[in-house]
Amino acid sequence: MNVQMLPREKVFRDPIHNYIHVQHKVILDLINTKEFQRLRRIKQLGTSSFTFQGAEHSRFTHCMGVYEITRQICDNFQRNYPSKNSDDGLWNDDERIVALCAALLHDLGHGPYSHTFEHIFNTDHEMWTQKIITSPETEINQVLKQVSDDFPEKVASVIDHTYPNPQVVQMISSQIDADRMDYLLRDAYFTGTKYGMFDLTRILRVMRPYKKGIAFDNDGMHAVEDYVLCRFQMYQQIYFHPVSRGMEVVLTKLLQRAKDLYEHNQMNGFEMPSLLVPFFNKNVTINDYLSLDDGILNTYFTLWQNYPDETLKDLAYRFLSRKPFKSAQYNHETKHKLPELSELVESAGFDKNYYTAINTSFDLPYDIYNPRQNKRKTQIEIMQDDGSLIELSTISRLVNALTGKISGDERFYFPKSMIVEHSNDIFSEYYQSFKDHIHNDMIV
Amino acid sequence: MNVQMLPREKVFRDPIHNYIHVQHKVILDLINTKEFQRLRRIKQLGTSSFTFQGAEHSRFTHCMGVYEITRQICDNFQRNYPSKNSDDGLWNDDERIVALCAALLHDLGHGPYSHTFEHIFNTDHEMWTQKIITSPETEINQVLKQVSDDFPEKVASVIDHTYPNPQVVQMISSQIDADRMDYLLRDAYFTGTKYGMFDLTRILRVMRPYKKGIAFDNDGMHAVEDYVLCRFQMYQQIYFHPVSRGMEVVLTKLLQRAKDLYEHNQMNGFEMPSLLVPFFNKNVTINDYLSLDDGILNTYFTLWQNYPDETLKDLAYRFLSRKPFKSAQYNHETKHKLPELSELVESAGFDKNYYTAINTSFDLPYDIYNPRQNKRKTQIEIMQDDGSLIELSTISRLVNALTGKISGDERFYFPKSMIVEHSNDIFSEYYQSFKDHIHNDMIV
Amino acid sequence: MNVQMLPREKVFRDPIHNYIHVQHKVILDLINTKEFQRLRRIKQLGTSSFTFQGAEHSRFTHCMGVYEITRQICDNFQRNYPSKNSDDGLWNDDERIVALCAALLHDLGHGPYSHTFEHIFNTDHEMWTQKIITSPETEINQVLKQVSDDFPEKVASVIDHTYPNPQVVQMISSQIDADRMDYLLRDAYFTGTKYGMFDLTRILRVMRPYKKGIAFDNDGMHAVEDYVLCRFQMYQQIYFHPVSRGMEVVLTKLLQRAKDLYEHNQMNGFEMPSLLVPFFNKNVTINDYLSLDDGILNTYFTLWQNYPDETLKDLAYRFLSRKPFKSAQYNHETKHKLPELSELVESAGFDKNYYTAINTSFDLPYDIYNPRQNKRKTQIEIMQDDGSLIELSTISRLVNALTGKISGDERFYFPKSMIVEHSNDIFSEYYQSFKDHIHNDMIV
Amino acid sequence: MNVQMLPREKVFRDPIHNYIHVQHKVILDLINTKEFQRLRRIKQLGTSSFTFQGAEHSRFTHCMGVYEITRQICDNFQRNYPSKNSDDGLWNDDERIVALCAALLHDLGHGPYSHTFEHIFNTDHEMWTQKIITSPETEINQVLKQVSDDFPEKVASVIDHTYPNPQVVQMISSQIDADRMDYLLRDAYFTGTKYGMFDLTRILRVMRPYKKGIAFDNDGMHAVEDYVLCRFQMYQQIYFHPVSRGMEVVLTKLLQRAKDLYEHNQMNGFEMPSLLVPFFNKNVTINDYLSLDDGILNTYFTLWQNYPDETLKDLAYRFLSRKPFKSAQYNHETKHKLPELSELVESAGFDKNYYTAINTSFDLPYDIYNPRQNKRKTQIEIMQDDGSLIELSTISRLVNALTGKISGDERFYFPKSMIVEHSNDIFSEYYQSFKDHIHNDMIV
Repeated sequence: MNVQMLPREKVFRDPIHNYIHVQHKVILDLINTKEFQRLRRIKQLGTSSFTFQGAEHSRFTHCMGVYEITRQICDNFQRNYPSKNSDDGLWNDDERIVALCAALLHDLGHGPYSHTFEHIFNTDHEMWTQKIITSPETEINQVLKQVSDDFPEKVASVIDHTYPNPQVVQMISSQIDADRMDYLLRDAYFTGTKYGMFDLTRILRVMRPYKKGIAFDNDGMHAVEDYVLCRFQMYQQIYFHPVSRGMEVVLTKLLQRAKDLYEHNQMNGFEMPSLLVPFFNKNVTINDYLSLDDGILNTYFTLWQNYPDETLKDLAYRFLSRKPFKSAQYNHETKHKLPELSELVESAGFDKNYYTAINTSFDLPYDIYNPRQNKRKTQIEIMQDDGSLIELSTISRLVNALTGKISGDERFYFPKSMIVEHSNDIFSEYYQSFKDHIHNDMIV
Repeated sequence: MNVQMLPREKVFRDPIHNYIHVQHKVILDLINTKEFQRLRRIKQLGTSSFTFQGAEHSRFTHCMGVYEITRQICDNFQRNYPSKNSDDGLWNDDERIVALCAALLHDLGHGPYSHTFEHIFNTDHEMWTQKIITSPETEINQVLKQVSDDFPEKVASVIDHTYPNPQVVQMISSQIDADRMDYLLRDAYFTGTKYGMFDLTRILRVMRPYKKGIAFDNDGMHAVEDYVLCRFQMYQQIYFHPVSRGMEVVLTKLLQRAKDLYEHNQMNGFEMPSLLVPFFNKNVTINDYLSLDDGILNTYFTLWQNYPDETLKDLAYRFLSRKPFKSAQYNHETKHKLPELSELVESAGFDKNYYTAINTSFDLPYDIYNPRQNKRKTQIEIMQDDGSLIELSTISRLVNALTGKISGDERFYFPKSMIVEHSNDIFSEYYQSFKDHIHNDMIV
Repeated sequence: MNVQMLPREKVFRDPIHNYIHVQHKVILDLINTKEFQRLRRIKQLGTSSFTFQGAEHSRFTHCMGVYEITRQICDNFQRNYPSKNSDDGLWNDDERIVALCAALLHDLGHGPYSHTFEHIFNTDHEMWTQKIITSPETEINQVLKQVSDDFPEKVASVIDHTYPNPQVVQMISSQIDADRMDYLLRDAYFTGTKYGMFDLTRILRVMRPYKKGIAFDNDGMHAVEDYVLCRFQMYQQIYFHPVSRGMEVVLTKLLQRAKDLYEHNQMNGFEMPSLLVPFFNKNVTINDYLSLDDGILNTYFTLWQNYPDETLKDLAYRFLSRKPFKSAQYNHETKHKLPELSELVESAGFDKNYYTAINTSFDLPYDIYNPRQNKRKTQIEIMQDDGSLIELSTISRLVNALTGKISGDERFYFPKSMIVEHSNDIFSEYYQSFKDHIHNDMIV
Repeated sequence: MNVQMLPREKVFRDPIHNYIHVQHKVILDLINTKEFQRLRRIKQLGTSSFTFQGAEHSRFTHCMGVYEITRQICDNFQRNYPSKNSDDGLWNDDERIVALCAALLHDLGHGPYSHTFEHIFNTDHEMWTQKIITSPETEINQVLKQVSDDFPEKVASVIDHTYPNPQVVQMISSQIDADRMDYLLRDAYFTGTKYGMFDLTRILRVMRPYKKGIAFDNDGMHAVEDYVLCRFQMYQQIYFHPVSRGMEVVLTKLLQRAKDLYEHNQMNGFEMPSLLVPFFNKNVTINDYLSLDDGILNTYFTLWQNYPDETLKDLAYRFLSRKPFKSAQYNHETKHKLPELSELVESAGFDKNYYTAINTSFDLPYDIYNPRQNKRKTQIEIMQDDGSLIELSTISRLVNALTGKISGDERFYFPKSMIVEHSNDIFSEYYQSFKDHIHNDMIV
């Protein structure tokens, strides 16, 4: 491996970590690639900034933060737990560079408005991350090859969880990894809420390598517990916020409508969304994929406001002017009401295919290892004074209350006009029938 | 005037002011207009986020913040200095609604990458703000008319400084106003620097209305002084940062090149930047103007990377992939060297019209009233125990050191390859001659 | 009632609430009494500053903070829920002054090193608070009487929970009251930990009066949940810290030894701790009680270092020079080992009466109303859109995990020399036997 | 030298530096001495907490902070500027341990209410610091001798500025040293003001060793400038606050009165302030000196409230119950009025020797090297790209405005009753004459 140091460390000012320290030439070169710079043009939280106005930060800053946390973990490991022989389960600092690159690049394949876009166009950001790293045509790939010919594949395998050293894999991806730690702190800072503010310094202090990955010192148990709770609360309060999801629904329906129009040749004759066409045609090159960002979608939405199709126009207007759909919760007992409610929306003059939706938000806040699951979780292990390990939920009553329990809610979305006050409208009776089904934000 | 209150106050979470409180229906309706929502798609600090990665916040959040500070000023004034008769120079709370609307809307006419865009296309954001407020075709205008027929003009006159009540005007625009106070705090927060962190609460406490506008209690002198220093430091450290300006120069040259190509009909046959065409043609409607945002420019830059024009292509790549021009300071003694340096850039294979530039950044940190100036400044007045006023710089040695003195620097910009190390390049001799002219970041 | 306003609001700078606003003359006069100023000389967290060095703040600042939070609650209630008729369950602002005074004075009767001192000298700070408020000889009582003759008793009855308006009582004392909210934020700030940092602004926004006291709006559920978790974590991490308790044990034994010596007339002939003598004699006047503070105890500890009694001398040295006893956890299964361990301590040359101790720390993080309990808890009620109430733990899985469950630990304390490494000491065999009983910080 | 590392780094939680890291056994042992623990019982800011209630922090935490900043400087120097040969002017890490010990111990000799006490009893904390370090009877001295026999003297010589390596001396004592950096940040945090919040991380990044001491990289100029301004503002706003000085005056007069009484044998027959007697008798041993702390003085003040001397009693009450003297500014033109004002105070029934005072507060915010001065200042040097040095004030207009100019004010202090409203008092005419001399907080 050819790992060159910079003549002098370079720093990037960052509100979360104060400074991000870059010491290796390959890291600086990766940051300067066009593929990585593209991440500046993709918001980290998609439609959440419509609810939490400060949350306009990009995936670029998040990736830099994940890199920085990983760097600090490596520093701690190297200072306190340097490996003396290959079998001692301690930290081998030769692993540093692959860990840093994987940390920096782990989100490289994200597209604009991530999950919504993926859902409509059937793309997968993890697959694209792998592809961008390993395809010879990208600047990223060329930079990584400076280190060694097989280095791109090594980095990709960390992100893919197939890299042999579990310490490196768990740094980047586990139930308490650099990725999650950065986004919780960052999203809390930019939304201006306090839910995500756990004690990073303390957690970094108590992390330690062992043979099967990464464990936590006993006296850091409460800091780790606090992190699990913070994550739970961020999901409940920020990521699952019903208004952000109301905008996500608008976006989904807007993209769906555009795709439907294209497929029925009803876009012909108008200014084509040329950068989206490969996606409509399901024939997407790396270059096509990397051309997209949030602003490009918004540009097309701006143009679509001038299209003759009323639905496309209206949904584009709703998205750009922040008119979220409203919602009410339902559960398995009230789910059977949804068709009836959809019909009422249709009766009030809306195409129910584009003006009603269900949106469910669920997260598994923490889980223990389960050999029968497909996606096996690495559980959080607390190391006792004598070196033995205890799984977190067995000693934390709070974590135990969350363990293995899916958390979230299911909502039915519809246009706001169904429930606001109207004086004398031809649809009044439908509105009233609709409203009668909702009580205390629940469908009843 | 018809000023309706909301049945229940609505709040917006904000990292600077914690919550932004909306109590009037007209304010909520203004926020919900498409023209105001557009501000979400325009960054507050333009190219600064290329240097300070966190500074990705939009003009939307800033406008909300200016509104909130103005609201707090009104609350303080109404609680502590309510007018008893029309001549007492105290606060008449009937002025609140016009102050709040003007605060919210003062930046409405900003376009993408504000000053750069204005410079190339000869637009003026203040004129556009007035136009958007007073033109009957905008949603903004229609909302404002709910209050009264002449209300849009009233609001516009506050922004124009022609409104009769100087207290209202100075809240929004003076040397220590809600606009500046919000942007200093906000830009400091998002850049993650501390220079802009003055004590807002204390300044709000010591502000007080008087006949000719707004003054500050004697015991708040140091808080006001600190604000002036913070502002000075933010300009020196953040707003004038040479690297951000290096990106601004790339952007200027890129837009210039596009305009030149269009004017010479060299865009024909390629995908037209349709939303920019009215600007190329110098025939811009309100709707054209309001269609633009940062993302739309970036979209065209993405498309231009596929144009055959090498200069356009290269400059678009440099902007999207963050390749700022480098720079060196010059002064009146070394200014005569610039043509020589430009020639060296040309000799090294760059068109000097698009690959060299001068960029000067100057600010007047604070000034006293000068009847002979065109743009008269409202000086900062400190009120003594007995009601008499003293101008700030006469009692603050630090403010005095800044008063009336323009501060900033002049820089010559050029491609980075002129000064980095090259091993064996055909242009080596030009590079070397070029480098010989630069010492300690200065042209010598 | 004679409630005078100050001509101009007075503010106190405070790191937690930024400013504390005093608007009533009676509040300012109360702050200026000698009894209230005494609280500056009593630390809020007793021996915790031996573990968390920043936690040197006094009860004075905490009381100011509780006052300020109560003031903000009253402001919110008056603005949003003003009572229109005596039966509507909303807020009657005539209650403000009694609430503010009770908030300010609720901790007035605390003595130095509160619980430890109370335990040894059998005093009770709540009783003393009542007494100081209602005894005509105090400055506090005289100030309160300015309002009305029965005002001191009214204020005392709020602190005593017998005041008729449950809203006022619950502001000052309930499971989520101004007292707890201030101390969590304050103790988190001064210790420099983040566990206590819940979202005060949001909680204040969602608090609302109703007939039986105070409830919380539905959309604030997560903020309230977060507060309950913060409180739990502060207890686990800060208030129950084993090292602080190790200093508390030293203090207890030191005061016990002094008392024992006095009672056996073994202090005669030495400089008497004159201000403690009334406590030794169990004959304490208000003036005696109010003369004590942390510094006075420390002064006697300094003098006691020159006494001939070796135990008194040694314990005083240990306390002043921060030599905490060490500890190990035990449980009901290992409790029977304690006599054996105490004997080993005695064998190693320490008087087991003064050099071993058990110390248990328990808290009930949250509880629901239980009619059979002596100390009935006011449960936290969440108000639905339709006005109905739901008890918090029924909708929060995390709070439910803590509800009604006592949390804490039991520890056995002993001198550090029992477990540190010794090379060749005559007591080595006892040390070794002792150490054999401890594994992973547990007695086994 | 025998410098032992701890088997595992020990950390102390601190709100300013998050964690303070102790890695050497000698540092931990020094912290655990009784002389160092005494600093917990001495407030850092003396009477300032009477004005800024949060500022109750002790000298202990400040000393720990100075240690931590010094440690970070050493780490930076060792990582980036390690000396290769004895003559290169870079950092020799063998100097680390003497720097750390000097940093930790630099304030060891402070007594209670530092300057006031020193003034009355003619002691000198710098001399005492030297003495405690070098006298064989202290625990400090014994711990330092573990390193080497002459180590105590070495450490003392750093504090004394006679240590040969100017880098070590300037770390601890210069115009921008670890001492000042810690107290500005700490005092800002605990007072809850923002004036002292400069960017420590950045300053540490740009510090660098050179032959004659410590310089700062060119690109850190603004951070250093900001630090100088912060320091200036802290002095103006916090340290020189007239109310804190009003309490300082009360304290001075109280100690003076006690001393006068003792010297005239008027304390006989009452409980003697035994720990102060050596100071009254001007015969003070190290042990006497180290016995004192804030609480001991307060204990005597409590006892003195029961003395028959009315002046002593009254001044003790004023101090314990926070009744500061009031003040007005004077200057060289109005100074001649002071005797007349003192006579009015005397006429109103106060002994002018104990109830009037002048108090002047001056600081030199920054100065350049002046070979003719007694106390030569180490000026702040900015290092250019080519290694040449420029003195700070030549490139910072703001620093230049402060350079060499003494800043502060002179005040005359007197009892509050001279200026508050009185209805019908026998002294009314004197009060009125007195008040006529004061306008806008100035003597006129």
